[in-house]
Amino acid sequence: MIKIYGYQLSQATMRVRIALNLKGMAFEEEFLDLLKGDQFDATFVAINPQHVVPAVVIEGVDIALFQSMAILEYLEETWPSPPLLPEDSVARARVRGLAQTIVSDTHRASVPATRKYLTDTLGHSDVELRDWVHNWAGKGLQAIETRLANDGYAGRYCHGDGPTFADICLFPQIIGARRYSVPLEPYPRIIDIFERCMEDKAFVDAVPE
Amino acid sequence: MIKIYGYQLSQATMRVRIALNLKGMAFEEEFLDLLKGDQFDATFVAINPQHVVPAVVIEGVDIALFQSMAILEYLEETWPSPPLLPEDSVARARVRGLAQTIVSDTHRASVPATRKYLTDTLGHSDVELRDWVHNWAGKGLQAIETRLANDGYAGRYCHGDGPTFADICLFPQIIGARRYSVPLEPYPRIIDIFERCMEDKAFVDAVPE
Repeated sequence: MIKIYGYQLSQATMRVRIALNLKGMAFEEEFLDLLKGDQFDATFVAINPQHVVPAVVIEGVDIALFQSMAILEYLEETWPSPPLLPEDSVARARVRGLAQTIVSDTHRASVPATRKYLTDTLGHSDVELRDWVHNWAGKGLQAIETRLANDGYAGRYCHGDGPTFADICLFPQIIGARRYSVPLEPYPRIIDIFERCMEDKAFVDAVPE
Repeated sequence: MIKIYGYQLSQATMRVRIALNLKGMAFEEEFLDLLKGDQFDATFVAINPQHVVPAVVIEGVDIALFQSMAILEYLEETWPSPPLLPEDSVARARVRGLAQTIVSDTHRASVPATRKYLTDTLGHSDVELRDWVHNWAGKGLQAIETRLANDGYAGRYCHGDGPTFADICLFPQIIGARRYSVPLEPYPRIIDIFERCMEDKAFVDAVPE
């Protein structure tokens, strides 16, 4: 039994759902409402003292797994088929680097806790918040678009012709970017890959309703 | 030949230096001045279109490696001795989760580009910037302290009795936290591990002068 503690709109949770779908692993899910503060309930704090989603509880595993990238690596090591990382170490580094560009440097700027600090603590307006989200999304997507265009490794997906960690992180970022009306015209290669993912049930089924 | 493109105060660059020191690998380094904008020079943009450090060029490897966590994984796969990840997959997930808690959710809030946006674009004062840095550092360190105290895996280091990716990410975070006068008294286990790292030349030699 695999149970994900997640949040409907969470990009990080979506990554885990996509990876499990691609690997054909069944899972159940419990939704927290991060805007209401469910992440501070004692039951969840015992599962994840960092108060963030996703956390993943797997039968027979004695800790709740935390942090989406650590969870993806665990899934890859434990259920290696189909592989979501290339075999070669340099290729793996490129895929992980693309994934981290999204995870650490792009998505992190727009998570609920950051948005809340900007509006509630620093008093920023909706327009200032939108500009903030657009700024970091733009920087990250531009860096990825440039790599996809120039380094010769991209194919039908970010790395070659099959989905990897890079696509698993990029896809939810584009779902989020569209919700925030981030202009996407400057990133034709990213959009092309996004549309490819939209043809794959493993990705589409992971999108919140 | 291994060459790091880095920045004196960069935590992410420090992680790579520590890992190379622990593995006994020699490297050379070129320093960029991120505050002056060296990361936008054409020579560096060709190496890393994301305009961030570190980037690592290794003889015989046809792309410059990017994103510190992807670089650490590459080093671990290529030069596995001494190991900087445990053998067991659950333990590896815990170590990667701790590392990622620092990398994505703690450190990212205080990188130069974020600080610059807060002061130059949003007009925040030094006090507001300090509160911002303290807020995210505090949340991340508290989550890690709680895990170290409660989950039974910590030893002399974050995971057992030898250094792993978790310590490699935690150590520079504490160097940075001290520079910003983040109160560290609430985190005795973290400080204990930090002091252990300070006894190890591989860590100390990686600290900027």
